[in-house]
Amino acid sequence: MITKPTLFLNESICRSNIEAMFTKAQRNDIVFRPHFKTHQSLEIGRWFRELGIDKITVSSFDMAEYFAPEWNDITVAFPVNILQINTINSLARKIRLNLLTESVETINFLSKNLESKIGFFIKIDSGYHRTGLAPVETEKIDEILSHSEECKLLEFQGFLAHAGHSYESRSKAEIIEIHENSVSAIVSLKDRYAGRFPNLVISVGDTPTCSVAEDFSLVDEMRPGNFVFYDVSQFQIGSCDISQIAVALACPIVAIHAERNEIVIYGGGVHFSKERLEHEKLGLIYGLVAENVVNGWGDIIPNMYVKSLSQEHGIIATPESEIPKYKIGDVLMILPVHSCMTADLVKHYRTTGGKTIEKIS
Amino acid sequence: MITKPTLFLNESICRSNIEAMFTKAQRNDIVFRPHFKTHQSLEIGRWFRELGIDKITVSSFDMAEYFAPEWNDITVAFPVNILQINTINSLARKIRLNLLTESVETINFLSKNLESKIGFFIKIDSGYHRTGLAPVETEKIDEILSHSEECKLLEFQGFLAHAGHSYESRSKAEIIEIHENSVSAIVSLKDRYAGRFPNLVISVGDTPTCSVAEDFSLVDEMRPGNFVFYDVSQFQIGSCDISQIAVALACPIVAIHAERNEIVIYGGGVHFSKERLEHEKLGLIYGLVAENVVNGWGDIIPNMYVKSLSQEHGIIATPESEIPKYKIGDVLMILPVHSCMTADLVKHYRTTGGKTIEKIS
Repeated sequence: MITKPTLFLNESICRSNIEAMFTKAQRNDIVFRPHFKTHQSLEIGRWFRELGIDKITVSSFDMAEYFAPEWNDITVAFPVNILQINTINSLARKIRLNLLTESVETINFLSKNLESKIGFFIKIDSGYHRTGLAPVETEKIDEILSHSEECKLLEFQGFLAHAGHSYESRSKAEIIEIHENSVSAIVSLKDRYAGRFPNLVISVGDTPTCSVAEDFSLVDEMRPGNFVFYDVSQFQIGSCDISQIAVALACPIVAIHAERNEIVIYGGGVHFSKERLEHEKLGLIYGLVAENVVNGWGDIIPNMYVKSLSQEHGIIATPESEIPKYKIGDVLMILPVHSCMTADLVKHYRTTGGKTIEKIS
Repeated sequence: MITKPTLFLNESICRSNIEAMFTKAQRNDIVFRPHFKTHQSLEIGRWFRELGIDKITVSSFDMAEYFAPEWNDITVAFPVNILQINTINSLARKIRLNLLTESVETINFLSKNLESKIGFFIKIDSGYHRTGLAPVETEKIDEILSHSEECKLLEFQGFLAHAGHSYESRSKAEIIEIHENSVSAIVSLKDRYAGRFPNLVISVGDTPTCSVAEDFSLVDEMRPGNFVFYDVSQFQIGSCDISQIAVALACPIVAIHAERNEIVIYGGGVHFSKERLEHEKLGLIYGLVAENVVNGWGDIIPNMYVKSLSQEHGIIATPESEIPKYKIGDVLMILPVHSCMTADLVKHYRTTGGKTIEKIS
């Protein structure tokens, strides 16, 4: 019985998403190191483990600490926050920890303060321009590598990129183009450094390129995260079908305004986050409404969407013909714009099969 | 010692904000029923209590349950979610609970299912068009009142409005105009119903109008919430000075990109929320950077702002002249765009005086 906003998870869709991505990694004979920042759940992590996956990615040391009891090979794919050196040392004693850096300053700090061995990747900017060194900045790369040699606890692993600009794509062709450019940018470094570091790993990993591209033969590892649930943004980008979205937020109806074709739900920015997207037909949206069916949700209801969010309220633009179908106390099933942000806000998941799934608190 | 994103609270600014609003309510001889959805903290609630305030507003039954041990007169200013009837009955046994409705359906449901007395307000749409009945819909109001008389546990309290369209203002004159229109819309109902309900309460309460307007003599109660912390949005609207903002998120620097005048912080959408605003000079921003000074923060640094947010990263646009002042491991103090959303995301506050302040978990 739903009484308040509840994030429903379709376990079967989720497991299919995991298997499809794992199969793609296997076909390319590369390491699959899924990013767990989306689900943040030990229990969902075990669905990966059942397939034999034993390495993961996270985006904070909090998450690394949460997963460390069950995962002993974790990459924290975020530029090292040196203020958390105590946490780094504590984790590095327990698990195989890989860090990410892009500066000599960070390497020098780690050199002086590490107490156990860690692996490190150099972050490469493959076109997104958020973080990382440009592939042509080989002088800076050489400087980082040379400073790292002063500390035996620092083990160079390779180069890591995140082609986050793929999120701006609106077609599979655009995603493939970004994938090819991004891979060729980072692979140039493999050619240059593989002589010196024969086990060098080239790691890539945004959900759009990992979902759409087929050829990963030039890289060594993929780290997508969002694909575990997908969402309306990924659908709009062209990364997934609507049927691959594995989560929906169930929200009670608290008011109906037939005169302006709007339904008010209990479900706001503190449940969905305020992530939004510009939908080509509907304009600015914060979520799409799917049919509420027994044990889950069904098809998208055309032209019914979350048009605005306050802290606890959501306003649903509703076609006139749909309004009479609803009453106060009914529950709407809403596909989120960005599942990572929505999942981060909930305390747990409820599966469409009736199980509660815990996550990081 | 800050190691990761931490929300700092300046207790002295916060207490001044509370006192200023309380004084305004007293000057107008009206009830001050502050909205606690912004801070969500029993301890901060006690700062109100010290002034003699004994009635509060919240926006969910979860918050009502959290505050009920210390507050026995709570209005849940959100259209009743009838699916939480068990929680409603449990709360109504313990405290004076006021609910909000705008439909006969909800009143009939409460009539049948209530076990203890509650007060109820009718939500009036004073121009925001999010929820509520238009002041001219007196037939619907009469219908709600007549149905409510069938249940002795339902006690009509009055009319409640939230002039949320004041958030679109960009000057004090605009805010005052909204205040006057909003008050005159709802006060028309007092004239009509006061004969039948002599103790009728007219309740208003958004932070912009409560901060800027001086005359509340025509209403009976004010319920602002955000003013306790204020934020960059309120500053832009004209509700507060920058010196009245009481919270700043402390974020470690993890990378510096001098070549594009950017600093990367540990602090993203899961810390700030993705609330944003269109700044007239800077364009789209997610926060402003203030000087990091001993025990708090100082002036705004001109042209330094959060230009984008990922899940854990923030990108700070930084003037070229500022870049050399920072190094990896320094901490930036960032004023949030929307303090309600940022405060909702943190587990606790740290005061600039060094105390930890707990909030709802």
